[in-house]
Amino acid sequence: MDAAEFRRRGREMVDFVADYLENIEQRPVYPDLEPGYLRSLIPTEAPLEPENYEDIIKDVERVIMPGVTHWHSPYFFAYFPAASSYPAMLADMLCGAIGCIGFSWGTASEATLMSLLAARCKAIRRVHASIPENSEADILSKLVAYTSEQAHSSVERAALIGGVMMRKVPTDNSYAVRGDMLKKIVEEDKAAGLIPFYFCATLGTTPSCAFDHITELGPLCNEENMWMHIDAAYAGSAFICPEFRPLLNGVEFADSFNFNPHKWLLVNFDCSAMWVKKRADIIGAFKMEPLYLKHENQESGRHWQIPLGRRFRSLKMWFVFRLYGLKGLQAHIRKQVDLAKEFESLVRADKRFEICAEVIMGLVCFRLKGSNELNQNLLKRITESREIHLVPCQLSGRFVLRFAICARSTESRHIQQAWRHITQLTFELLQEPNH
Amino acid sequence: MDAAEFRRRGREMVDFVADYLENIEQRPVYPDLEPGYLRSLIPTEAPLEPENYEDIIKDVERVIMPGVTHWHSPYFFAYFPAASSYPAMLADMLCGAIGCIGFSWGTASEATLMSLLAARCKAIRRVHASIPENSEADILSKLVAYTSEQAHSSVERAALIGGVMMRKVPTDNSYAVRGDMLKKIVEEDKAAGLIPFYFCATLGTTPSCAFDHITELGPLCNEENMWMHIDAAYAGSAFICPEFRPLLNGVEFADSFNFNPHKWLLVNFDCSAMWVKKRADIIGAFKMEPLYLKHENQESGRHWQIPLGRRFRSLKMWFVFRLYGLKGLQAHIRKQVDLAKEFESLVRADKRFEICAEVIMGLVCFRLKGSNELNQNLLKRITESREIHLVPCQLSGRFVLRFAICARSTESRHIQQAWRHITQLTFELLQEPNH
Repeated sequence: MDAAEFRRRGREMVDFVADYLENIEQRPVYPDLEPGYLRSLIPTEAPLEPENYEDIIKDVERVIMPGVTHWHSPYFFAYFPAASSYPAMLADMLCGAIGCIGFSWGTASEATLMSLLAARCKAIRRVHASIPENSEADILSKLVAYTSEQAHSSVERAALIGGVMMRKVPTDNSYAVRGDMLKKIVEEDKAAGLIPFYFCATLGTTPSCAFDHITELGPLCNEENMWMHIDAAYAGSAFICPEFRPLLNGVEFADSFNFNPHKWLLVNFDCSAMWVKKRADIIGAFKMEPLYLKHENQESGRHWQIPLGRRFRSLKMWFVFRLYGLKGLQAHIRKQVDLAKEFESLVRADKRFEICAEVIMGLVCFRLKGSNELNQNLLKRITESREIHLVPCQLSGRFVLRFAICARSTESRHIQQAWRHITQLTFELLQEPNH
Repeated sequence: MDAAEFRRRGREMVDFVADYLENIEQRPVYPDLEPGYLRSLIPTEAPLEPENYEDIIKDVERVIMPGVTHWHSPYFFAYFPAASSYPAMLADMLCGAIGCIGFSWGTASEATLMSLLAARCKAIRRVHASIPENSEADILSKLVAYTSEQAHSSVERAALIGGVMMRKVPTDNSYAVRGDMLKKIVEEDKAAGLIPFYFCATLGTTPSCAFDHITELGPLCNEENMWMHIDAAYAGSAFICPEFRPLLNGVEFADSFNFNPHKWLLVNFDCSAMWVKKRADIIGAFKMEPLYLKHENQESGRHWQIPLGRRFRSLKMWFVFRLYGLKGLQAHIRKQVDLAKEFESLVRADKRFEICAEVIMGLVCFRLKGSNELNQNLLKRITESREIHLVPCQLSGRFVLRFAICARSTESRHIQQAWRHITQLTFELLQEPNH
């Protein structure tokens, strides 16, 4: 769908929305269906080829609406109001288009926290069952979680929130954690009387898009009764391409897995998908059941997360999967990886620069050969010029520039222009006497 | 704005969005402004009278766009991608219109958790500073939090997540907590060696919209070094009307306060607003600073919440405040309270029914005089008829029906029709031999 088609479909959608709200009281306020009704109405897999827009819109009435509780019907008197107004809807359209992320990206942080809390609950129960004289507070004070020194800061924060120790595991020279590195620390901690209970592996780290070796780490976690959570926030989307699937080997050992379709799968922010091996582990950690939340079909996800409510996010995944098809989504991932490789070639061809980590997906880590200060100065100039925007990272104590392929609209000419711009600023920087 | 105007403005917005995205590469990718630039461009208060839509749209370019980092510019290479596509935007428009809340309502739960975690961090530091030989685990095991027995289940869940004890405080015959009730339990707990550290007050409880007496509770919390959080998720919006302001007296003792504009202030889900007396208390509890998140203007909100990212929600508040004006928003609140009073009168005029809690805002708690089973049967019939939708609650052990005024489109005739429907089902129920 291009901008021209969006203009047409957008107008139709505006009318659809207005019609829906003008006639909402004619609809039954509460659905007359059993949970699971959807299963027979939709295919088990996302379509390979893009579908027709008209078919999708027809399916809104055929598939979606029969299952909707119409919160904005004037005959809805349950719970408390959910606000709605035309101005707010207009602003949301604009908000979706601007699509800027407040402060940073997303809700993989919540998935990490949920998995850590579930693991904490499970570990406390297990240890308490085997040694009943240990109090909950005793056990809590001995629990220790692990993650890569390259893992996202939200992992450390999850441990802080959960009130448990967190150890950073050193990485190899490709910035990934290997089994023997984790094993060594776990053995030391066990010898010191601590209780290892959780490991957060990263597939596609934020600094350099490194992949922890989960084929080695998974069996270790299973043996040691440690929950293995996989944070694949960015790279997870790429596993829809068979050529990237080998990076996912070892996922069979995981207790939970998370990725953000809002990063790389064309679904606007926010949308984060979490998979858990045993539902009961998550539900057990958060279950609360007041009367006003009881209803006939208790099998719900509200014990799976911190907020009770959430938006109907699957709707946008459904639109995107159907209108792009698997092929369209794969093409998007592959195009962006190719653009990263193109940028990598430009960097490698310039002897003043070096590539700092293997380019596997859409991220290129590079720097000027020389001091950190030199690279900090280069980044400062890039930022102040305001023509392109990128952020740094630290790898092996070195200040490194991260060039991530982000926008859906980025083409080869933007990569070429960005590189011309960087080399121009580099030229100016190196001209100066005390660069 | 009515549906007809929304159709027109919606089309314009679709074009605005398409124009924005088609020409995004002409915009500077990164803003050339200092944080705080906005302050001089916008008024300090929401408008009293509704503003002109054209003025708001002009302000999007004048006020908002200069401060935006254009995440979807092809020259954006920072962090990782934030996905975006036309189909996802179309689906989001529909999602906003349907506006159904997954499982239940919202993110006041997160605010409660944040305040509890900040209070926990503060209490541990305070106790540790005065008695350094106490370990963190020791202190944690003695911390005790309090809330009303009528409080939302998310409060208890926050304590569960935070790994601290939670006590439910009994309420008076209007289902509100009074100072002496809390004082008694706190004294008992202190005598038993525990450390009271947190009280979550509710203004407008979920079961019956009761208001805890914060003028009594606030000074007690301040004396005892207990963090007082106020959860006003639903009722908070009503404080824009002077006649409801007295219910907010005592807020000056609070450490944090939360309400959900997405409940009752015409802002689509999700949008929850939290105020904290001392920013440092919240920041201190969650701070993490990796290099890829460092930038020149560090004063940001990302240490204030669990997810790192969040959507640009203030945009819809801005549209709504300006297009309704304070007067329009007050009129909305007052109309809904009036509709609740209208329903209350209908119930009171029918001797078979009783009102179970004072009707202060838009919620009426009522039941058939008689057994819980009788009322359960009535609700079952209401639910199965699918003409109206409401949920129950429990008050003093009695099964009670909650009639909440929810939809913006609810008018007197819907209230009258709902009551006719309820009395018809009641008639049928009471006709049966073994009702």
